[in-house]
Amino acid sequence: MTNDNTVFVGNKPVMSYVLAVVTQFSNGADEVAIKARGKAISRAVDTAEITLNRFLDNVSKKEIITSTETIDTDTGKTNVSSIEILLAQEK
Amino acid sequence: MTNDNTVFVGNKPVMSYVLAVVTQFSNGADEVAIKARGKAISRAVDTAEITLNRFLDNVSKKEIITSTETIDTDTGKTNVSSIEILLAQEK
Repeated sequence: MTNDNTVFVGNKPVMSYVLAVVTQFSNGADEVAIKARGKAISRAVDTAEITLNRFLDNVSKKEIITSTETIDTDTGKTNVSSIEILLAQEK
Repeated sequence: MTNDNTVFVGNKPVMSYVLAVVTQFSNGADEVAIKARGKAISRAVDTAEITLNRFLDNVSKKEIITSTETIDTDTGKTNVSSIEILLAQEK
């Protein structure tokens, strides 16, 4: 299942997400995608940086993608930026 | 000069930075780098997305780099995440 390898970053402390990423790699994942929207984008970058600098030596950034998503709110549709940071185990 | 083609994103409204990027391309720049640190990272992504979706048709994302910078504060050194989004004119 693809979703098993995705960590959605929201408003929790950054270390919660770092732990989630480290856990997925510990469980044998080859790749983990860190995704976030809006203001949580900064925290997604923090998650990737802390994970790579402090916890996982043989994992690196494979790809970073930014995009725009349209979401429905009470007051109509609005655009929000999103980011996906793909971390991959080095072979 | 390299700095002429860099837009540093901070705490101003996002449209200030979009205008700065559009202006640099209008002045003939082939590439413009959008840089930000910490919480401003989300706004840097917004700047790139709005610029590409609403203003510049023949410009695309060339590269996105994230890194960790060590900065000096009153209470000692601290790490902060940073992002650089490189936009380039399509040939």
